[in-house]
Amino acid sequence: MDSFEVPEVVVLRLPLYVRALSQLRDGGTDVVSSQQLGSLLQMTPAQIRKDLSYFGRFGKQGRGYNVRFLLRELREILGLDREWRACLIGVGRLGHAIINYPGFSPEGFKIVAAFDGDPKQVGTQIGGFTVRPMSDLAETVKEMKISIGIVAVPASEAQGVIENLIENNVKGILNYAPVAPQVPMNTVIRNIDPVLSLQSMTFYLR
Amino acid sequence: MDSFEVPEVVVLRLPLYVRALSQLRDGGTDVVSSQQLGSLLQMTPAQIRKDLSYFGRFGKQGRGYNVRFLLRELREILGLDREWRACLIGVGRLGHAIINYPGFSPEGFKIVAAFDGDPKQVGTQIGGFTVRPMSDLAETVKEMKISIGIVAVPASEAQGVIENLIENNVKGILNYAPVAPQVPMNTVIRNIDPVLSLQSMTFYLR
Repeated sequence: MDSFEVPEVVVLRLPLYVRALSQLRDGGTDVVSSQQLGSLLQMTPAQIRKDLSYFGRFGKQGRGYNVRFLLRELREILGLDREWRACLIGVGRLGHAIINYPGFSPEGFKIVAAFDGDPKQVGTQIGGFTVRPMSDLAETVKEMKISIGIVAVPASEAQGVIENLIENNVKGILNYAPVAPQVPMNTVIRNIDPVLSLQSMTFYLR
Repeated sequence: MDSFEVPEVVVLRLPLYVRALSQLRDGGTDVVSSQQLGSLLQMTPAQIRKDLSYFGRFGKQGRGYNVRFLLRELREILGLDREWRACLIGVGRLGHAIINYPGFSPEGFKIVAAFDGDPKQVGTQIGGFTVRPMSDLAETVKEMKISIGIVAVPASEAQGVIENLIENNVKGILNYAPVAPQVPMNTVIRNIDPVLSLQSMTFYLR
């Protein structure tokens, strides 16, 4: 299977499958039909069968999917069967909120270092780490095998910081700055922006 | 203009337009072409013209858009020309991170009350508020004119809390719990989930 053969919209849905299957497993369900899975995910059974068909045959017609097997396979496909190491850039209020976010580590995403461009922040403590200067980025990324950069700097600095990360071979960017940075093709960026979510909500609430 | 006539995918893009136009205005740009706007937003000029056509004619062929006018109109369309009041439900680590998030209030989204279902949390201080019991929800929502509920409770409690909010006429839900809650048609929900973003990223990083 080649990553480029799978539509991105399918890849974006796979984590939802993983979450639903984990809940089914924890609830003691051994086999699930595409109908049941569809009803959990608010999708049609046909869409689910089509999505999964990109990765081979997981179920037999009329027999449903083995929950544990499908979960294990999808976790492997997504690369969730290993630990991923991330660094945080920017230790202001937002950076503190991120380092205290309880959801990353149980899912295998481990923040292992924190950086800041402000000399006054360098050397301070955050979430058990000593904040490093940006000049240490290249060495730290290599030494600690960091592949994901979590960006929590002000909007005006985000593009520069992201380019710096990419130059140092960090190919996954989780961006919390309220901008849409430009990145090269072989980089994967995801933007987290609750304000954008609220701003599209108010259209319906007026 | 009726909300139901505009595809949701267009509504989801409007806040990106607002952000780009704000940046152009702050940079001193008075008029912008759909080409320039497209290049900023990584969209085609045709797509931009089509999106804006749902709301009337904003520019004349070949003359581009007046930045301030278009910005003001889009903010009004989205309902961003007023303040929106929100309450936070759940004051654990995630709730603390949300209340300290610096991005909401400059954009007109104001958290005005915090609640928790745990009697041990009720009465404690968070972000300048005294945490209220869930039994105060109905009265507080009415009194403080709250229209958005920010949900930061554990996954297992999210559906119940969201139903409680909806019963009390809170029709906008910003959900940080790692679940996909079911809501009635006339409710607007947005899910914020950095772990889902990371889990679809690792597919490409393997």
